[in-house]
Amino acid sequence: MPTDLASGAACPVPIGDHTHVLLAHGGGGRLTNRLIDSLFLPAFGDSAVHAHHDGAHLHIGGARLAFSTDSYVVRPMFFPGGDIGTLAINGTVNDLAMCGARPQFLSVGFVIEEGLPMESLQRIVPSMRTTARAAGVAVVTGDTKVVDRGKGDGVYVNTAGVGLIEHDGLIAPASVRPGDAVLLSGDIGRHGMAVMAAREGLQFESAIESDCAPVAAPVLALLAAGIPVHCLRDLTRGGMASATVEIAETAGLHIRLDEAAIPIREDVRGACEILGFDPLYVANEGRFIAFVPADAADRALEVLRGFEVSRAAALVGMVSDTSRGLVTLKSRIGATRVVDMLSGEQLPRIC
Amino acid sequence: MPTDLASGAACPVPIGDHTHVLLAHGGGGRLTNRLIDSLFLPAFGDSAVHAHHDGAHLHIGGARLAFSTDSYVVRPMFFPGGDIGTLAINGTVNDLAMCGARPQFLSVGFVIEEGLPMESLQRIVPSMRTTARAAGVAVVTGDTKVVDRGKGDGVYVNTAGVGLIEHDGLIAPASVRPGDAVLLSGDIGRHGMAVMAAREGLQFESAIESDCAPVAAPVLALLAAGIPVHCLRDLTRGGMASATVEIAETAGLHIRLDEAAIPIREDVRGACEILGFDPLYVANEGRFIAFVPADAADRALEVLRGFEVSRAAALVGMVSDTSRGLVTLKSRIGATRVVDMLSGEQLPRIC
Repeated sequence: MPTDLASGAACPVPIGDHTHVLLAHGGGGRLTNRLIDSLFLPAFGDSAVHAHHDGAHLHIGGARLAFSTDSYVVRPMFFPGGDIGTLAINGTVNDLAMCGARPQFLSVGFVIEEGLPMESLQRIVPSMRTTARAAGVAVVTGDTKVVDRGKGDGVYVNTAGVGLIEHDGLIAPASVRPGDAVLLSGDIGRHGMAVMAAREGLQFESAIESDCAPVAAPVLALLAAGIPVHCLRDLTRGGMASATVEIAETAGLHIRLDEAAIPIREDVRGACEILGFDPLYVANEGRFIAFVPADAADRALEVLRGFEVSRAAALVGMVSDTSRGLVTLKSRIGATRVVDMLSGEQLPRIC
Repeated sequence: MPTDLASGAACPVPIGDHTHVLLAHGGGGRLTNRLIDSLFLPAFGDSAVHAHHDGAHLHIGGARLAFSTDSYVVRPMFFPGGDIGTLAINGTVNDLAMCGARPQFLSVGFVIEEGLPMESLQRIVPSMRTTARAAGVAVVTGDTKVVDRGKGDGVYVNTAGVGLIEHDGLIAPASVRPGDAVLLSGDIGRHGMAVMAAREGLQFESAIESDCAPVAAPVLALLAAGIPVHCLRDLTRGGMASATVEIAETAGLHIRLDEAAIPIREDVRGACEILGFDPLYVANEGRFIAFVPADAADRALEVLRGFEVSRAAALVGMVSDTSRGLVTLKSRIGATRVVDMLSGEQLPRIC
């Protein structure tokens, strides 16, 4: 039996109560974190310098670099506002930007299902080129694998990226301080609802397009303006709720969000209401939050609003030390509720 | 319809005569090259500095780095001598080594099929840790996605890696010169036959184990010894035949191989004969060829033989300019035949 011959010791750590991998283990919420904490960190943790962060900081050959990877399995592969290729480029560009790095070089790995129409690749690859150019990065190396029919779903794309860190601060959850302002770069919920609509063939009154876009330019502008950025996080899988909870828990602080200040387009809000989604948990692909000292918030907002992708940037919350590892949301009607991390899987394969 | 809404211009370039992706497009042979030449290079070529090479050379922040990626889709995921995790670590370590770089940092991306027994991950991840330690690299960042049941095959793994280039030469097919000796680091054919046996439940008299291993140490020792290494290539998908043909074509030179000098274990040769495989085309995961000036060949062999992984290193061929882009093999009985690149798919999903 092949498996009897294989090497590798068994890991004694139980992973929650799950004997098999669930879709929610990839959802970016509680179960994903449990998988990371119970399996990946014990194995790779010594060297994984910035756990629960979008990328690693490397010191190599005298250079300070950020290094990040993501696989993209979005279904369907084409959706309003983008496709799996634009997502794969912008996603990794944004992960590097969240380290405060200038994204420069990307690798691309395709896992293609046998039988994929060549026409699909002929749309995805040029779309990656266009997106890479717009984001100012070069795709410099790649790999293609093909799996048998029924063992994939069209195409899965992995990108890894290397970016240059030119600032001296540590941009990470550990740098968040009581008194920090929480800035949100724009309206939330569009990517998730665009993919949902494409997947289910839904028609809304107005077309909801994904917000998929590179956000490195406004981030680098914040740093260039001398804003002491404490932490950055893009609001992908698990949405704004999971991102803020993860940061609050890692920093051991209390993040207070103000619902009325969080920009959500009316059509997105309506679609969420009809479908029973909470926009705080819906994935975005061109939105991020920035933690900056309160006295730098106005200047930071001014910088962010100078870029199309973050024109609607807003102050949406504050950090305090009134509780440890907690996110609360003051609702529009004045009530306050605790925000938890996504615990199941709201929208599988959103990115 | 979702696809009507998507952006991205169509690429006008036809890809051979194939309207759909075949397994052979991922086989590392002629069709893989056609896909690269017709689709990926036109899109990314400006920046893909070393086309048809195992990795890219980057200049960033004053450092000279190699950057490489591979996805691993091997079936079955456990096989004699390794598993998909050991393969994913060693494969990218070796790609960096083939650039003459010192492998340092790796990223890992998992695409897991819903329902994968957690026990499988609990074997693969520790096995990656052990392999990474043995190869002297750190896994510093990662990503996990889960796809629905029936849309994957257990787990696919992508690794990307960054290594430091400490030498001044250009190690690439373009540096190969007439008069170069072709050195092979050890016996060939084991990985492919080990996976084949595991997949088909074959029993040979002796167990054939994969040769999966990191080869960075002997490569770095060659460079440290001052051997002017012109080109390096690991003999993975498509085997030794496809690797040498690709180099001969890129360099525009003639590589003459001597079959009698190529080490192949008797059990591997026997298994290949029974199953109708040509060992020259069978994948290896711990073997490489090195092109060095003929007068440095003996010294290089001595260095290589100082390492367990390349103990059986041998001089297996010479480069000349008697033909352009040709590989010929002098057989054991003295006849000479032309070696072509793998044109179909000998063993799908071998890595």
